[in-house]
Order: sequence, then C-alpha cells, then structure tokens
Amino acid sequence: MAPQETHPVNPSVKTGDFEIEALSSQCAARAAKLATARGVIETPVFMPVGTQGSVKTISNEELKSIGAQIILGNSYHLYLRPGTELIEKAGGLQKFIGWNAPMLTDSGGFQIFSLATLRRIESQGVQFQSHIDGSKHLFTPEKSMDIQRSIGADIIMCFDECTPYPCAHDYAARSVDLSVEWARRCKEYFYSKENKYDQLLFGIIQGSVYQDLRKDSALRTIEIDFPGYALGGLSVGEPKEEMYSVLRETVGLLPKNKPHYLMGVGMPEDIWEAVENGIDMFDCVLPTRNGRNGQAFTSLGKVNIRNAEYVSDFGPLDPECDCPACKGYTRAYLNHLFRAQELLVLRLLTLHNLNFMIKLLKVIRNSIKSDNFLQEKERFLKQYRSREKTL
Amino acid sequence: MAPQETHPVNPSVKTGDFEIEALSSQCAARAAKLATARGVIETPVFMPVGTQGSVKTISNEELKSIGAQIILGNSYHLYLRPGTELIEKAGGLQKFIGWNAPMLTDSGGFQIFSLATLRRIESQGVQFQSHIDGSKHLFTPEKSMDIQRSIGADIIMCFDECTPYPCAHDYAARSVDLSVEWARRCKEYFYSKENKYDQLLFGIIQGSVYQDLRKDSALRTIEIDFPGYALGGLSVGEPKEEMYSVLRETVGLLPKNKPHYLMGVGMPEDIWEAVENGIDMFDCVLPTRNGRNGQAFTSLGKVNIRNAEYVSDFGPLDPECDCPACKGYTRAYLNHLFRAQELLVLRLLTLHNLNFMIKLLKVIRNSIKSDNFLQEKERFLKQYRSREKTL
Repeated sequence: MAPQETHPVNPSVKTGDFEIEALSSQCAARAAKLATARGVIETPVFMPVGTQGSVKTISNEELKSIGAQIILGNSYHLYLRPGTELIEKAGGLQKFIGWNAPMLTDSGGFQIFSLATLRRIESQGVQFQSHIDGSKHLFTPEKSMDIQRSIGADIIMCFDECTPYPCAHDYAARSVDLSVEWARRCKEYFYSKENKYDQLLFGIIQGSVYQDLRKDSALRTIEIDFPGYALGGLSVGEPKEEMYSVLRETVGLLPKNKPHYLMGVGMPEDIWEAVENGIDMFDCVLPTRNGRNGQAFTSLGKVNIRNAEYVSDFGPLDPECDCPACKGYTRAYLNHLFRAQELLVLRLLTLHNLNFMIKLLKVIRNSIKSDNFLQEKERFLKQYRSREKTL
Repeated sequence: MAPQETHPVNPSVKTGDFEIEALSSQCAARAAKLATARGVIETPVFMPVGTQGSVKTISNEELKSIGAQIILGNSYHLYLRPGTELIEKAGGLQKFIGWNAPMLTDSGGFQIFSLATLRRIESQGVQFQSHIDGSKHLFTPEKSMDIQRSIGADIIMCFDECTPYPCAHDYAARSVDLSVEWARRCKEYFYSKENKYDQLLFGIIQGSVYQDLRKDSALRTIEIDFPGYALGGLSVGEPKEEMYSVLRETVGLLPKNKPHYLMGVGMPEDIWEAVENGIDMFDCVLPTRNGRNGQAFTSLGKVNIRNAEYVSDFGPLDPECDCPACKGYTRAYLNHLFRAQELLVLRLLTLHNLNFMIKLLKVIRNSIKSDNFLQEKERFLKQYRSREKTL
C-alpha cells in the first residue's frame, strides 16, 4: 500500500487507522474506530445514502442532530449531474453540499447495472446510456477512480461488476475474474495519482451466492491489499438465508484489522446478523425510501402510517423514540399529512427512520462493549417482532 | 360584544386587548400587541399559511426558530380533510398539529369561491362541490362558525363573499349587502354558543375596488362591532394602484384601537405600503408557494434559483440572511437540488422566504418604534429594487 498521510486533526492518527475497541466473546462482532481525513467513525456504523448529494428530504443540520457520522454519495449520479467539473470547482463534494464530516462514494458500478440502459461490459470497462437523457458514456476502473478523486469523498470504492440474482455459476466466476482485475487496475491507477483529499480506497468482494467464488474473490482481493473490504452483490433479491450463509462463510476470511463493509444492507434483523459475523459498516436506502412511502421502522416493528387504523391514533409514531417526528407529532397527524399529500410528512418519517437506524447501531455498539451482544440481539428482535405476531 | 374571558397566562390581559406601543409621526403605521388565548402577537406581523394544518414543507420547530408568532389554517380544507370531528377529538387544531402558539382560520369563503365548483350563492349560504371528491356541501355563516369553533383557532373570521376582479359595481354592492348580513349572523350565532377556546371573531370589509362600497362595507361592519377588522377581496388580480387606493381610503375608517388585517397580501413592497396606511396583520402564500417554485425573496430582490446563472455561484442565496438555507448552503448547490428534483430544496427556499418576511416585519416594527418608518421604507425598497435595475 502507498504511504498514508498523517491525520489533519491528530497527527498521531493516520487515515485508514482502524482501532478495535472491543471484541465480543460471543461472536465475531467488534466495536472500533476508523480514521478518515474528515473525522473518526465509530463502528458498527449506519451510513445514510445521499444519492445525488442530498440525503433525500433531510438537511445537514438534521443529520448531525441524529448522530449521522458519515453519509454516501453516488458516483454515477453525481458524474451525470451536476458533473465532476462543478464539484471540483466547489472544492469537492463535501464543500459543495455543506457536509463537513466523512463521506463515502460508491464506484458507479451498481447504478450502471441497475439504472442505465444498453450496457456493454468489456474487459476495458462498461459502456452505458444515461437514465436521464440517453447520452452515451464509458466507465472504466480508471475513469471511476478519476470521478471519485474529483468528488473527493473520504472513502472510495473499487469499480466492480455487481451481479444480479439469480446468476449462473459460470457467469459469476467470470465476473469475479473481471472484478478482481478491475480492483488491481483501480489500485494501481489511484496510487499513481496525487491523493489530494487523503482518500481511502476499499476493495469489493463479489461471487454471488456461491461460497467457492466468494472465497476466491476474497482471497484474490485481499492479496491486492486495501485499507478496507466490502461485500457487494448481496441484498439484490436472494433469500435471506443465502445472504446470511455468505456472511458466515466470507467475513471470517477478511483481515481482522481492517474495516468490513456490507453494501446495500439493510433491515434491522440483517444488521444484527451481519455485525454478529464481523461487519462494521452499512448503507441502505430503506430508511429514506420507505420513509417516503409511509413506512416507519419502530421499536415495535414496522408501521405503515397511511393505514386507516392510525386516522385517530393520537399516540407518537414510536413511543420509545426521541426524534422530532415522535416528540412533536402524533400518528393521526402524520396520517393526515400523508392523505393530504403534505411534503412535511416525507421528511418526518425519513428523519425518524434514519434516527432509528443510527440509534440501533449505537445500541449494537454498546452491546459489544458491554459484551452482551447476543442478549441484546434477542431482546431487540423479540420486541421488534412482537407487533408482527399480534397482527 | 360579549364579555371577554381573562387571559390564561396573564389574568390582567384579556384576549382581544390591543395595546398600541408606538405610533409613527410620519404616517398611519403603528406597533402594537394583540392578546389571544394562546399568546400575545407583536404587530405588524406576517402570518405563514398552513392551509391543511401544515405550513408546506416546514416543521413547527423551524417556524419557531425563525420567529413565526401565528400561523393560518383554512376552514374549507380542514373541514373536507381531516374533518372537524377528528380535530375536535384531538382537542382542537393546535393540539392536532402540535403548534402550541396562536392560530387564525379563515371562514372558508375564499376557497369556496376560488377552488370549489358548482357554487350557488343564496342569502342562506353557498352550495358547492368539494375539489377533492365532488361531494356536495352547504356553507352558511352559522356552519362556518361551527367549523371554526371546532377547529378552535385563536382568531376566526366572518363568512363572507370574496368578489373576484374585475367585478361590476352593482354586483359588488349586492355582495356587500350579503357579506354585512352574514357578518351579523356570524356574530349573533358565535356569541350564542359557548366560547370554549376563547376565540376572537373578526369582521371583513369587502366592496371590490369601489371606494363608496368599501366605505359602506366598513361603516356597516364596524357598526356590528368586532374585536378586529380585515380587508378582504384585495390582491385578487387588481392593479397595485387600485389596491393602494383602497388602503388609503379605507383603513383610516377602521377603529384605531382595533387590529387591522389585510388578507392575502403579500409582496414586500405591498406590506410597506399597507403598514404605512395602518395595517397590522398580513398573510400570504407567496413565500411558501414561490419557494416551492424556486423563487426566493432576498435583500437584493427576487432570485430564481433555477436560473443557469447560479449553476456555479458558490455564494449564499442572500448575503444578508441568517436562515439555515443561507448559512449552510450555496446558490450552486440549491440550483443542483432543483435540477436533480431533490425535495430538500423546497423546504430550504420556503424557510428562507418565510424568514425573510418575518424579519422584514420586524424591521418595519422597529422602524415604527424608532419613528423612522419612511426612511427605512425608502432604504429597503432601494436595495430590494437594485437588482431589478441591473438586470
């Protein structure tokens, strides 16, 4: 690995330093601190998704108020709009959006495979057409690095192919070869350039639901050597048991002294399962997207606030929650706002859901430090599922 | 007038008390305090509009943070959805929406005449069909009182006919007769019932742009005797000079010891003009509606943030503003959010515009107390129009 820069705030800390504070005696869960150029992140951590440079409906002030430590941006979206030239001119994405804390960008790969049309995958890279205006573009590992260098997030991701589910074994095998080769090119290109923002480049493990391919991908990606590793290609439609099985077999292969990031996950129950297997970082659009659809995660399970049962329910959304939506408003009012198509409700539910996830990760982190992870997991899931049982 | 209740917070203050603190020596402007059941309002005051029980996109916390003293609700909308039964069950609108400060509701008349279809106006009342589902309803002065009594706002308005512009003199004359008769019925009915929320019922002056009719409407409405008077039927499409002319001729006819409310106005320049003529209260959807369309009121005039000129403008929306949108974000970012259809921008511009209007009314109020109203008016308008001159 290329030499690290010293940390701008604390010279004794180097970006990429991953200090493990506590290890569970019950499982592979760990509580740690990851140093990035714009701040230290306490893990396990949930990272709200700010696709186009905005966590949908939520202000930076609100994100800070609920304890968000790091947010995501999407290279594909930001490359298309507003474009890297403008972001560079602004002094990087964080300055552009006014978020003075850590950020992570994905490589653009996931969106090319899920949003764009007319893709052609070659060893060089991927040709695609913009979902906005149909314009043609080519993303290569080098191009993705350049985009993410312009955007300037603290953590950036290798350009990979995210296989769909289901995916044939031979296709998945060839895809792992491609992603490993791309990871090598990403690293080589990234470290040949100036690291202006002191960014950390993470590798991504693929291999669909096949244990042999996951192992192959893990070992070959680890050989390239990155300051952090992600599991990609999960939560793409496979049964939960398949995902859990990959977690159990794969996370243990990753270096213990590096952060482990599970991309695109997820649901509260999945997060407990993943942390139990040694995952440190999560991102997911569910809290934001479901919030905009009227669904709230609560300590008593999921609540769809649009349901008729809440029309005259003058209790808070979640009696155990301290977020502005729960402290200031009732279920009946939130239900009214949805029926009246008032935009206020979208942000209130989003804020609640993000607060729920961030507080959940704090509970998990504390349970690791107190070494009662499994008891807390059981307690949480019992209460979380209690409502579903009574329905 | 029926006897007033004593004020719940300060027994020496009675709701409806209108204490004039300062009179301009230059014009009819005055700074005062109006006591309502849920708090004392410092005038001149701008009242944000919360049509359906929500100031669109803005939270109660934000309204408080920018100094909003009183907000509006619309009887027509709230009657149709969520309905007065639910609002009563919640303990009134303020409890329902979590706003623990003064509110005002209009009578529903304006919306019947602007939104609903198939209206039939009779001396009894108005038959109309809901704009939501076409269902048929009848609003009478008594019905409007019952709806506003259920909603429970601190200030409620007489049911009147709001004439359109242009409007023939003979139609406007008959309409004044009708509105005066309805005002009489509103007062009689309202004071025959329990005043559970200690509400204040204001009368409304109509008469279109005809000075003789405005005078007739004013004198006859004053004769009925209300704790406050509004000018309705202005800012409905008439030339500014017509509105200013009505203001100059009519406001002086109103009792000086009662609050004067100009309904549906307005633009910063109109507010200066109206205060100069003795108006104390304003409501208008422009700050909220224009904000959602990308238009900001700034100290340098209007800014349409969607314009291409702001794509790479890294300055704040308004360099003189201290609102969260101006402190935390740049014009370039707000422009990006609009282009990317991110909901966050709607609330940021709305919050800025409301803050602008509320702060403007504070500047006006201070200029009355310092007795330099005309100088401040000139200074403000010169700067506000400076940008338009350079464009």
